[in-house]
Amino acid sequence: MSGRRLVLSWPEGEAFGQRLARALGCDHAVVATRRFPDHETYLRLPPSLAGTEVVLNCTLADPDPKLAPLLFAADTARDLGAARVGLVAPYLAYMRQDRRFEAGEAITSRSFARVLSASVDWLVTADPHLHRFASLDELYPIPSSVVRAAPLLAGWICENVERPLLLGPDAESRQWVAQAAATMGAPFAVLEKTRRGDREVELVLPDLTAHRGLTPVLIDDVAASGHTLIEAARLLAEAGFAQPCCAVTHALFAGDAFEKLRTVTADIVSTDSIPHPTNRIELAPAFAAAVCAMLADRQKP
Amino acid sequence: MSGRRLVLSWPEGEAFGQRLARALGCDHAVVATRRFPDHETYLRLPPSLAGTEVVLNCTLADPDPKLAPLLFAADTARDLGAARVGLVAPYLAYMRQDRRFEAGEAITSRSFARVLSASVDWLVTADPHLHRFASLDELYPIPSSVVRAAPLLAGWICENVERPLLLGPDAESRQWVAQAAATMGAPFAVLEKTRRGDREVELVLPDLTAHRGLTPVLIDDVAASGHTLIEAARLLAEAGFAQPCCAVTHALFAGDAFEKLRTVTADIVSTDSIPHPTNRIELAPAFAAAVCAMLADRQKP
Repeated sequence: MSGRRLVLSWPEGEAFGQRLARALGCDHAVVATRRFPDHETYLRLPPSLAGTEVVLNCTLADPDPKLAPLLFAADTARDLGAARVGLVAPYLAYMRQDRRFEAGEAITSRSFARVLSASVDWLVTADPHLHRFASLDELYPIPSSVVRAAPLLAGWICENVERPLLLGPDAESRQWVAQAAATMGAPFAVLEKTRRGDREVELVLPDLTAHRGLTPVLIDDVAASGHTLIEAARLLAEAGFAQPCCAVTHALFAGDAFEKLRTVTADIVSTDSIPHPTNRIELAPAFAAAVCAMLADRQKP
Repeated sequence: MSGRRLVLSWPEGEAFGQRLARALGCDHAVVATRRFPDHETYLRLPPSLAGTEVVLNCTLADPDPKLAPLLFAADTARDLGAARVGLVAPYLAYMRQDRRFEAGEAITSRSFARVLSASVDWLVTADPHLHRFASLDELYPIPSSVVRAAPLLAGWICENVERPLLLGPDAESRQWVAQAAATMGAPFAVLEKTRRGDREVELVLPDLTAHRGLTPVLIDDVAASGHTLIEAARLLAEAGFAQPCCAVTHALFAGDAFEKLRTVTADIVSTDSIPHPTNRIELAPAFAAAVCAMLADRQKP
């Protein structure tokens, strides 16, 4: 039997949470939260959660200050009788440090997964930055499900960009860029990327002479420092192309990355996984479908 | 058999950690930590922790941003073979919200204790702000031990204040203020305190006419907003006393609390549980004794 469902958002995720609850056809509430003078967090949840399937909606950009409140909310929801507590993290953090490059390093992908998995019953996220792990199941022991943004980005490009040339930032992106290009009948290419540190990447543009005159569209899962996209835009200009559009799933934009990227691109568009002025693609319907499937799978007989 | 011991500090706790390691007669290391451009935390521990009793030294003022790195460090220490991972938290956070005052509230004292207890094997702290719970054992399922700062504060007052009148901020402080006063053969009194909100307290001074001419010394476990101490100083001035000294265990000092308190007091002294310019009383020797006892208790046969 299906229990009552409730989407619970933090104040900064209220708009996304409302869209998600609407798509799920269930109630939505915002966690009441404030900080005490000593910087500890106060939290209040709706008091009647008995038997409820609680969907915590918490995007995890800048994750460290969000972890304690998230763990407290999950613990409190259980304490208030929730049947299960799931996590919708439109952006999932700590996907980068997925192995020990130097002795003694924390494998934070693993540690973060352990902490979250001890606290919530399931996880739904969009385009996690999987690199050395093939799937979230290798990191998260709890059931997890991934929303793919590529078809939504492709849809936006198809409707808004004339004669697009799709460009993936690295070899790893080939498969899904190829798929998006096939969907809209557009050509594509991928760049060659070598990372030299947190803030430095080396990029090589393939030969694009056959595509002169098309509008380049850079697609990436996350814009963080923005260096990859900025460097790609520079190389495209050198190759005689117009300023590119950028379509990214996660508008993380650390520091002044957004301001810098704006100056070298024609347009920047992102999904609403992280609230940002570039958000123009709504993920809530896709998340609702994934959450529905998750809850159906996990229903008690 | 006693294994190798190692105190592991965060950079801001390095001085305390060095003193603790010296008192324990063991090695000390600092966790290498930095932030990625996207605000995720990088951590590196000493790589050889096999069989080591790891003592994580992490004071928990402003706790939320510290939780993820602390949990990662504990997880990594285990991953690197640590025999046990204990936590020395000179200041322990989330001791205030210890019950549900309104329906739906998070009992963060309990939730925080659950999170830490799932991650470390034991806990040593100083003067935890216990209010409705009689001991840490009611909150923390892991073995815990408490360092009492009152004798150390009393020692400092005895050496540095002539003709002191010890003043506790509320009825709850009576027992330990009385004890400190007895130790040094000084008179004492306690104020009557009613809390009206996060930032508002009502204080009543007892009749102190018998103690005119003595130097009032306000003793408290924590100076956070400083409102209690500031209001007490005001009442003492009204009653014709000189500006008081303040001796506190935890120099938390939120916002401009320290600047405000300075203007109405003759001197402010604190232990080094939280790094602060007022630190003049070292807790490391007392912590070393408590850690030693903890490790001895927990030795495998």
